[in-house]
Amino acid sequence: MSANGSPGSAYAELERRFHRLSAINRAGAILNWDRSTMMPDGASSDRADQLATLNVVAHEILVAPEMPALLARAEEERAPLGVWQTANLREMRHVWTHANALPADLVEARTRATAACEMAWREAKKNANFKALLPTLEEVVKLTRRVGEAKADALGLPFYDALLDEYEPGGRSSRIDALFGELKAFLPALLQRVVERQKAAGAPLALDGPFPVEAQRQLGEAMIRAIGFDFDHGRLDVSAHPFTGGTAEDVRITTRYDEHDFARALMGVLHECGHALYELGLPRDWTRQPVGNARGMVLHESQSLLMEMQACRSRAFIDFAAPRMREAFGRSGPAWEAGNIHRLYTRVSPGFIRVDADEVTYPLHIMLRYRLERAILGGDLALADLPGAWNDGMRDLLGIVPPNDSLGCLQDIHWPDGAWGYFPTYTLGALAAAQLFAAARASVPALLEAIARGDFAPLLGWLRTNVHGKGSIADTDRILVEATGRPLGTAAFKAHLESRYLSA
Amino acid sequence: MSANGSPGSAYAELERRFHRLSAINRAGAILNWDRSTMMPDGASSDRADQLATLNVVAHEILVAPEMPALLARAEEERAPLGVWQTANLREMRHVWTHANALPADLVEARTRATAACEMAWREAKKNANFKALLPTLEEVVKLTRRVGEAKADALGLPFYDALLDEYEPGGRSSRIDALFGELKAFLPALLQRVVERQKAAGAPLALDGPFPVEAQRQLGEAMIRAIGFDFDHGRLDVSAHPFTGGTAEDVRITTRYDEHDFARALMGVLHECGHALYELGLPRDWTRQPVGNARGMVLHESQSLLMEMQACRSRAFIDFAAPRMREAFGRSGPAWEAGNIHRLYTRVSPGFIRVDADEVTYPLHIMLRYRLERAILGGDLALADLPGAWNDGMRDLLGIVPPNDSLGCLQDIHWPDGAWGYFPTYTLGALAAAQLFAAARASVPALLEAIARGDFAPLLGWLRTNVHGKGSIADTDRILVEATGRPLGTAAFKAHLESRYLSA
Repeated sequence: MSANGSPGSAYAELERRFHRLSAINRAGAILNWDRSTMMPDGASSDRADQLATLNVVAHEILVAPEMPALLARAEEERAPLGVWQTANLREMRHVWTHANALPADLVEARTRATAACEMAWREAKKNANFKALLPTLEEVVKLTRRVGEAKADALGLPFYDALLDEYEPGGRSSRIDALFGELKAFLPALLQRVVERQKAAGAPLALDGPFPVEAQRQLGEAMIRAIGFDFDHGRLDVSAHPFTGGTAEDVRITTRYDEHDFARALMGVLHECGHALYELGLPRDWTRQPVGNARGMVLHESQSLLMEMQACRSRAFIDFAAPRMREAFGRSGPAWEAGNIHRLYTRVSPGFIRVDADEVTYPLHIMLRYRLERAILGGDLALADLPGAWNDGMRDLLGIVPPNDSLGCLQDIHWPDGAWGYFPTYTLGALAAAQLFAAARASVPALLEAIARGDFAPLLGWLRTNVHGKGSIADTDRILVEATGRPLGTAAFKAHLESRYLSA
Repeated sequence: MSANGSPGSAYAELERRFHRLSAINRAGAILNWDRSTMMPDGASSDRADQLATLNVVAHEILVAPEMPALLARAEEERAPLGVWQTANLREMRHVWTHANALPADLVEARTRATAACEMAWREAKKNANFKALLPTLEEVVKLTRRVGEAKADALGLPFYDALLDEYEPGGRSSRIDALFGELKAFLPALLQRVVERQKAAGAPLALDGPFPVEAQRQLGEAMIRAIGFDFDHGRLDVSAHPFTGGTAEDVRITTRYDEHDFARALMGVLHECGHALYELGLPRDWTRQPVGNARGMVLHESQSLLMEMQACRSRAFIDFAAPRMREAFGRSGPAWEAGNIHRLYTRVSPGFIRVDADEVTYPLHIMLRYRLERAILGGDLALADLPGAWNDGMRDLLGIVPPNDSLGCLQDIHWPDGAWGYFPTYTLGALAAAQLFAAARASVPALLEAIARGDFAPLLGWLRTNVHGKGSIADTDRILVEATGRPLGTAAFKAHLESRYLSA
C-alpha cells in the first residue's frame, strides 16, 4: 500500500481507515461469490448473518464521529499530496457522503422492504401476477423516494441524479436525456432497416447440439486465456445468474451452461471477461483504497460490452474462434464456417426480454425503463398503471407487445431490489464501448487483424493504459475525453451499428 | 439467536458483542477454507490482508475497554440466567481471558516468528537439515515461553497447562502424565504381540489400482451421506492437506485423492466426517455464541477417531462397505472380500511418520512429542539436542530409528507453527473415542449390526444427545462422565485394542 502524506497526518489516518474498509469489503465480495457458487443451501441464514455483520462493521468505519474532522483536516492540510492521493481524498469524501446521507432507520427500512419485495417478485413473476407485487413495490418506491431526497440534500444534486450517482458517480440525467434523445432519433429506423435486410438475406444455418458442458467449459477457458484473463488471479465457475465478483487481485467470474446452445455461455463468459479484465487492470498500488476502484457502472459495462459486442462479435474474432469451436465440439460443415457463425452472432430481432436482446434493440429496452422509472419516482405514473405504460412503451419503441407481465414489466429484478437509477448505465456503457473501441482501432494499427490471429495484447494494452489503469483518478467523462478525444456521445455507437449491420 | 437475561442487561450486551465476534470468525473460517481449496495462487497477499483485518476487528471486540466491567456486571447481575446462559457467560470470560492475557507486541512478535519459522521449516524438511531450522525455532520457543508465562499468570495455571488450555480448556498435564503413564505400561508390549500375531497370519492381499478419482469421490460421498453428513449444510472438496473447516451450519471437509490407494482418501473422508458431524450437531440455538462451540480438541479428535477408527475400521462397517467398494471400482475376487479388506484396514506396523501411523502405534508418536516439548519448554532439553533425543525416543517407544530428520523431528508443522501444547490432544481424543464408542454400544442395542446394514442413525443419535448437542455447556470430563459414567481413562482404549487385534 501507499500510505502517503506525512505519517501522522489526517490523510495518512484516512488511508488506514479506508484500507480496513476495503479489506472488509473484499472479504465480503469473496463471501458473496461463495454464496452464489459453492455454499450449500442450508447455510443461507448463516451467511446472511456474516455479511450483515461485515456491512455493519464497514458502515461503522464510515460513520465514525471522527470522520468529518479527519476529512476536513486532510482537505486543509498543506501536506504535499500527489495526484493519486489527491484523487483518493476526493473519493473518500464521496464514499463518506453517500454513507452518511441516510439515517440508519431508513437504511434498515429499505433493506427490509427490498428483501420482502424481492421475495414477492419471484412469485409474481412466476405467476405473471403484477397485482401480487404491487404492495411491496409501493413500499420500495416510497423508501426509494426518501433515499433520493436524502441523497439529493447531501450531494446537492437533483433527486434522480442523486440515485444515479451511487452507480455512476458524476452521472447526470440531463446528459442521459440528451443521449437517449439522439438514440431515439435514429435507432427505431435503423432497427427496421436491419431487420428487413437480414430477412432478405435469409436465416443463417443453426448449430445443432448437444454441446457437452465440459467441452464448453474448456472452450470458454481457452478463449478468455487467449484474451488475457489471468487464472493466477481469477477463476471461472458456474452460478445460476452469471456475474463478475471477488476482488481486483482475485476475480471470480461465473456462467451457466446450456447443452443446446453454447453461444450463450461463451458470449456470457466473454462479457464477464471484459468486466474481469477491468478489475485485473486497476492500478495495483491503489486497489485497497477508494481511488483504485473501478470508476463506475458506465465504464464497467463499457468493458464487458467492448469485449463481448465490439471485439468478440466482430468477424475478425469469429475467424479466430470458428476453427476452435469446430475442434471443441468435433463438428464441421457449412453451418460451422466463420461467415455463418458471424451471421448467427449478429442476428437482430426485437424481443420481449432485455437480457436476451441484441445490441441494436437493447438500448430501446433501457430507454423504456429509464422513462418509466423517472415517471414513477416523479409521481407522474401510478405504479398500478405500470403494466399498461410498459406495453405502450414496447409498442412505441420496439413495435411488439408482451402477452403477459412476466415477459413485460415483471422481468427484471432491479426495481424490486431497490436499484432505481441503475438501468441507464447499461446503455451509456454500450455507447462508451463503441467510442473506446473506435479510439483503440484508430490508435493501434491492425487491431482487428491481431484479434483475428487470437492476439488480444494490443487491445488489452490500450485498455490498460487508457481505462483500467486509471481507476477512479478522474470522472468517466474525463477518462473518455483523454482516451477518445471527446466526452460520451452516440456517434461511435451509430457508426458501429451502421458498419456492422448495414454495410457490405 | 437467544438473547437472554433482561434486555439492557450486561449479559444481553455481551451476547450482542459475542454474536458479532462469532459472525466475523465464521466469515474468516469460510475465507480460510476458500484459501485452501478455491483461491488462485496470486491472491494470497490479498487474502492475508482480509484475514488479518478480520482478526484485528475480532480482537478489538475482545479487548474493548468496556469488557471487564461488562463481564463483572453480568457475573454479579441477579438476572435469572438459564443454564445455557450461565455456561455461556463462563465461556465468554474464558475467551476474554485468553485474548487479554497477551500484550499486543507479543502477539505480533509470535505471528512474525512462526511465519518465518514455518517458511524455514519447509526448506529444512525438504533438505533434512535440522540446523537450518534451529535459529527460527529458537525464536519460536523463546516467544512460546513468554506466551505460556503470560497465560499462566492470567489463568492461574501451571505454565504448560496454560498453553494446553488454549486447545483443550480445562486440560491438565498432571492428568496427561498419569494417562500416558498407563499407556506406556501396556502399549509397547501389546504392539509387539499384535505385530507378531499379524506376521504369523501372513500379509493380506493388496487392492491393486488405479482407482479413478471420480469413482473415489462418489464412493466417499455415498459413504458419508450414509453416515449422516448433511450436504445441505456442507461440502466435500479437495485440498493439499485434508481438514474440516467452515461453520456449524456450513461445514467444509476436504481430502486428497491418490489413484493408487483409495483407502487413504476414504478413511480420511470418514475421519473428517466425524469432525463434521460434531460441528453439525452443535446446539443450533447457540452456535453463534461461545457456549455453542465445540468443547475442545480432545472431544473434536474423539469424534473423528470414533468415526474412522472405532466405527469405520470395524468388521461391521467393512461388511457394509466392501460390496460398495467392489461396485465403485468394478472389481472382485479374494482381495475384495470383506475379511481381507478388514485385515488391510487394521494392519499394524511401527513407522517413522505420525500421520501414517495405525491406531496402536499412534499414541507412541504422541507420547514422544509430549515428552520432548515439555523438556524443551522447561529448559531440560536444548533445541540443538532435539534430533538425538527424538531418535532415542523412537528407539525406546517404537523400536525404530529414522534414517534422517525429515523422517524424524522435522516431520510435523506444529512446533514451527507455534502449536505447543497441542500434540497430546490427539491421543486424549483416541482414548475418549474408545470410551464413547464403548458407552454407545452398551447403551444402544445392536449398534454394530445397524452399522453393518449401513444404518448409522442409532450411533449418530447417541452422539448428538451425549456429545454434539452439549456444545461447551460443561467441561470435557463432565461430558464424558455423563456420557460414559467415568472421566477420561485408558481402559476402554486398551479393551478396544485387545478385542480388535488380539482376540478371535
